[in-house]
Amino acid sequence: MADQPCSVAILGLGMIGGSLALALKASGFARRVLAWDRDPQALATGLDAGVIDEACADLDAALAADIAVVAVPNVAAAGLLEDLLARTAHAHDGPVLTDVASVKGNLAAVATAGGPAPRYVPGHPIAGSERSGVAAANPGLFARHRVILTPLPAQDADALALVTRLWESVGAEVLCMAVAEHDAVLAATSHLPHVLAYCLVDDLAASPRRDDLFRFAAGGFRDFTRIASSDPVMWRDVALANREALLEAVDEFSARLALLREAIAAGDGARLEATFSAAKAARDAFAEREARRRQS
Amino acid sequence: MADQPCSVAILGLGMIGGSLALALKASGFARRVLAWDRDPQALATGLDAGVIDEACADLDAALAADIAVVAVPNVAAAGLLEDLLARTAHAHDGPVLTDVASVKGNLAAVATAGGPAPRYVPGHPIAGSERSGVAAANPGLFARHRVILTPLPAQDADALALVTRLWESVGAEVLCMAVAEHDAVLAATSHLPHVLAYCLVDDLAASPRRDDLFRFAAGGFRDFTRIASSDPVMWRDVALANREALLEAVDEFSARLALLREAIAAGDGARLEATFSAAKAARDAFAEREARRRQS
Repeated sequence: MADQPCSVAILGLGMIGGSLALALKASGFARRVLAWDRDPQALATGLDAGVIDEACADLDAALAADIAVVAVPNVAAAGLLEDLLARTAHAHDGPVLTDVASVKGNLAAVATAGGPAPRYVPGHPIAGSERSGVAAANPGLFARHRVILTPLPAQDADALALVTRLWESVGAEVLCMAVAEHDAVLAATSHLPHVLAYCLVDDLAASPRRDDLFRFAAGGFRDFTRIASSDPVMWRDVALANREALLEAVDEFSARLALLREAIAAGDGARLEATFSAAKAARDAFAEREARRRQS
Repeated sequence: MADQPCSVAILGLGMIGGSLALALKASGFARRVLAWDRDPQALATGLDAGVIDEACADLDAALAADIAVVAVPNVAAAGLLEDLLARTAHAHDGPVLTDVASVKGNLAAVATAGGPAPRYVPGHPIAGSERSGVAAANPGLFARHRVILTPLPAQDADALALVTRLWESVGAEVLCMAVAEHDAVLAATSHLPHVLAYCLVDDLAASPRRDDLFRFAAGGFRDFTRIASSDPVMWRDVALANREALLEAVDEFSARLALLREAIAAGDGARLEATFSAAKAARDAFAEREARRRQS
């Protein structure tokens, strides 16, 4: 297989799967992109829009590809991976398997339950959009973004190298991380903010003055809540799959919010200013690094 | 004064005051923009950049203008307003007074403490930026944005009309609201999100894995925390000035977050999906209305 173009099967043709399909064809990494989805409409849309080359009638047809990418929400991904492992002698035969799910712990548990799954390489592109569905596919989605791979015990080195090349071909920077570390980092920086944004909008929508609230909400609110427009099923699955790490992140946040509440109630301006200043410094530094990285 | 161009004094030359100065000169509403600031450097920068026409050595010089706009953070604004009321026979004489502060309750209390202050018109442009300082002034800041005025008892109708024209001249839509209603709406849609964003970034910055957290934070995090780059002194003052309404908003949010936490802990996918879906629907509707309003 080496450096020749591969055939790639996308299992679950939504926004992420569709974006990867377009990006892999544009980069030349994929000679041919197949797709499987339980929703025939997604496949039809993908074919019509030229996002994929072939719609597979069943999973076995998709497993004829060199690489199969699981691109369904996190809980469904676990079930699908179980099925794929059964069809590939626990990832010893068949295509290299990988996925794009936001939580790695539940998939690693499935993969290692029956011994090593050497040709399954868990992956997570740190890129997304509040838009969903294959019609929102964007071939530039992964350029200059990071992809985290969480190799498992007895990981096949060639499989790891192939998945690395796949992501590098679409402009992403690939890093490896332990499963538990990945899930804790993502819980704090992504899953918790989504829960908070959903929670705030739900809170306002339930208010008796909801019309005035949304009428006078401005740009800060718009950006803060952008991620509350994300796919509810995907984020339900993330919350379920990363339960332990997410609960820990929610509890840490709640404890810190209680401290801030105390400072507000006490009229403790010095403490409020110190907290806000520390946060601003950290956030400004983050934004500067991000801007540099995107330009480099 | 009527429809002729006015002279306007900006008291506190930061990002908002500077933006208003530029916008009022561009619209032709202001014949001449004066400014007073306790920081001579801000005045020098404003003069050099052509943001203002004249730097006032003291408040009395600024009170020669037709309109004086208090544009300092909320707690300082209360002190400055007290001083201005003393110099203008409690807003019976001298220029029309207004302000741009994000909380109206503390200013209304100062203004009404000694009887009516007929020519003081409390105002709040619902526009901002995480940038601060006069160098960040932007003449388009208020176009297609809303300005809330909260008229006080015995409000002078001419003063109210003049402040309304001032904001309309820079492209803003002016609405009136009661003081308490304003502070409750803004607590929920603006002050609470700022506290949550500051809180999240502060939480992450205090973590032992802070480097990895900020390294793998992505676009969702960037937008969610943009407002945590806002001016800490301004937001300290907002939290202090709007304490009661903000505490109520924090408590409502915390109660709702506790419910979501419960659903996550119980693995209650149906409840999570229902909450996330309701939030997405409300947020999508808000975003659509906003987009239409900006285009109209």
